[in-house]
Amino acid sequence: MKKNILTGFSRLTKIQKLDLIAAQLPDPEVATDTMRSFWHPHAGTQRLFDEFSENTITNYFFPYGIAPNVLINGKMYMVPMVIEESSVIAAAANSAKFWAEKGGFHSEVVSFIKNGQVHFTWDGPFEVLTAEFATLERRLRKRTATITANMEQRGGGVLGMELIDMSHKLPNYYQLSVKFDTRDSMGANFINSCLEEYAAGLREYAENMPGLAPWKLDVIMSILSNYTPECLVKVWVESDISSFSSIDPSISAEDFVRKFEMAVNIAKVDVNRAVTHNKGIFNGIDAVALATGNDFRAIEASGHAWAAREGKYQGLTDISLENNRFNYSLTLPLSIGTVGGLTSLHPMARLSLDLLKDPSAKELMQIAAVIGLANNFSALKSLTTRGIQLGHMKMHLLNILNVYSATDYEKALAVEHFKHHKVSHKAVDDFLTSLRNQ
Amino acid sequence: MKKNILTGFSRLTKIQKLDLIAAQLPDPEVATDTMRSFWHPHAGTQRLFDEFSENTITNYFFPYGIAPNVLINGKMYMVPMVIEESSVIAAAANSAKFWAEKGGFHSEVVSFIKNGQVHFTWDGPFEVLTAEFATLERRLRKRTATITANMEQRGGGVLGMELIDMSHKLPNYYQLSVKFDTRDSMGANFINSCLEEYAAGLREYAENMPGLAPWKLDVIMSILSNYTPECLVKVWVESDISSFSSIDPSISAEDFVRKFEMAVNIAKVDVNRAVTHNKGIFNGIDAVALATGNDFRAIEASGHAWAAREGKYQGLTDISLENNRFNYSLTLPLSIGTVGGLTSLHPMARLSLDLLKDPSAKELMQIAAVIGLANNFSALKSLTTRGIQLGHMKMHLLNILNVYSATDYEKALAVEHFKHHKVSHKAVDDFLTSLRNQ
Repeated sequence: MKKNILTGFSRLTKIQKLDLIAAQLPDPEVATDTMRSFWHPHAGTQRLFDEFSENTITNYFFPYGIAPNVLINGKMYMVPMVIEESSVIAAAANSAKFWAEKGGFHSEVVSFIKNGQVHFTWDGPFEVLTAEFATLERRLRKRTATITANMEQRGGGVLGMELIDMSHKLPNYYQLSVKFDTRDSMGANFINSCLEEYAAGLREYAENMPGLAPWKLDVIMSILSNYTPECLVKVWVESDISSFSSIDPSISAEDFVRKFEMAVNIAKVDVNRAVTHNKGIFNGIDAVALATGNDFRAIEASGHAWAAREGKYQGLTDISLENNRFNYSLTLPLSIGTVGGLTSLHPMARLSLDLLKDPSAKELMQIAAVIGLANNFSALKSLTTRGIQLGHMKMHLLNILNVYSATDYEKALAVEHFKHHKVSHKAVDDFLTSLRNQ
Repeated sequence: MKKNILTGFSRLTKIQKLDLIAAQLPDPEVATDTMRSFWHPHAGTQRLFDEFSENTITNYFFPYGIAPNVLINGKMYMVPMVIEESSVIAAAANSAKFWAEKGGFHSEVVSFIKNGQVHFTWDGPFEVLTAEFATLERRLRKRTATITANMEQRGGGVLGMELIDMSHKLPNYYQLSVKFDTRDSMGANFINSCLEEYAAGLREYAENMPGLAPWKLDVIMSILSNYTPECLVKVWVESDISSFSSIDPSISAEDFVRKFEMAVNIAKVDVNRAVTHNKGIFNGIDAVALATGNDFRAIEASGHAWAAREGKYQGLTDISLENNRFNYSLTLPLSIGTVGGLTSLHPMARLSLDLLKDPSAKELMQIAAVIGLANNFSALKSLTTRGIQLGHMKMHLLNILNVYSATDYEKALAVEHFKHHKVSHKAVDDFLTSLRNQ
């Protein structure tokens, strides 16, 4: 087996790597051309992308689009979205316009604390360890003074720390749990750097503190948590129920909101629906995260775990229909940054933040969550009225036509034809076949 | 408020949209140049991207890299990964090589069923509705015969359907729940098209079936579920514990595996750690999903909800150290496709699938899950030994140098210097300042 293992791949130049990969492909020359065609034309810009990650040979493109008319707390935004799935941007834009005409979205940052832990084992009594915690905390904070200085200047830093007894869950297991304010950065590197210092300090403390000598402290790991239940944003829309009177010709305002409410409640009681309900929310949130250089895996992990915080996985939105008012909200944890990471390095992330008028992290939390709610509202509106396939397949029509290599002329005729017919792969195939046989 | 609402944005040409957006930015000319520089040089290829989504004005680039030496069930792969986060590809590659030397990864598809539901209310007795379910099912299947014909030719189709009483959760709430085999496609459009037909058939049945007339059936919505607990993949590695004897100079093989086991168990009992543990797994899985044109939001939503299936959110991996063997596995739902969607339309997604030798959906499930486990193994190995910041910040060094616009000469000196010093923004700043003042 060992003889098939490739050694030294990471040390090859980019061109050598690309050539080696092309040689694995059916037509190496075509593959080389394809991969090179995705390079950025400016060598300096391309080098940035090469250096974001490792073993890079080219770029992967996502469409970059705009949802206009996103009115949040009275301020109008053009929101950049990066997503490969058809109809997500159209849905966000439709929803944004619908709500802009009704006063827009409302939002607030509920809390703004990140956290991380030093996980360790300790085979002595907990009380002995905690007896002089004030001394320990002072020493630990001193160790990270140079790391935290900049963050403190920006108004953030370490908010507090505590020792947590977890030994009822696993034998001898304890945590040093630390809370942070990382201001406009997502803060992963800052938090991890602090925690690794704390781990070293904790080890030293256990070794040198008189009275602790008989027992052993072993650090298992030190790492931020991507679970941020204290970094919450809430966004909502509200209007009179009567304002839905012309939402769809088939349904009255009252029937619409009752059906909508039922759809929201179904996502509370059925996990099959809850997952898809929330997936649609993250379609919007991730599209904003991607466009602004943020880490969508962290956002997804935190949001979905939070959806399960009450012991079963549930939809993230809440509805109230009291006093003839429709009030629909989304609350979720959202750790997102507007400085650090790729936010200033990726030219299009930088442009996205410029387009949003250089928002703070708190402002971007609200914008991203609003797009999540906008997408969810559009999805539920379609699902509870005419279904999603009609609109979705119309949006997807051009992709299907591209699969069949339709010409511009054929596309124009097809778009006209399918204004009045149901789109499916088979229907498009039949349409083109009949057209081509004419 | 209404006067600020932009109308007709979606009907503008791409150039008009781009110009309108550029006009919002600090320097419209520079912004226009930046956005245009991200267009693909071939107009036809660029048009594909424009048509994937709506209101598109340019593309967003992600680095496209390769993890070599991924040995799965005896077959060697070069795995394409698309990710913006530094050190993820390096971690996957290191892990892959480590395990390739020990027989590689093992994997199996545990189950392969997708599902969707027609959610409806019914104000009569459940038994009356189900009494002639065989008739109903026959009629429903007949309605979708033209939709399912192609899928059946490929060996898939509708596997079964049932009516489910959900009225103990919400008043009058019932489901028609349907199981599907969508073969090598992710199947969302296929499932949704079938379900919308079933909804129409169900409505018709309730209206026309003798005996059902006194009661009312109301369809709330018809939609696939992204929760796929019956579309599971399991991947694992195994070796003698003694094979970890040289994994890190600071630790014996026995101490390493005990610490590693503790780290895995912590992710089972502490949600703060579980979320980050799983986030690292999805770093790898999503990178493969992105590179092959798959929908990562669906994968994330399903995986995280599954992590909470037992009433609390837990880490997705399992470890056993019996009989001096290290056995480490990852099991999760993974609905992913190798035909349909963007898989053949996106030139780089197509190239990724070619590089993987045109895998089936089941094969790609295994490859993606393996990369998830590879990333997680690397993360836990670093966390439980020297910590992650040392490696991560070294990988991130070039990004930091780019923030400070370092020249090639400065980069070369910095890379050499930071082989022996801790990387931080401040340390890089100090190093460059002192270099530039020399």
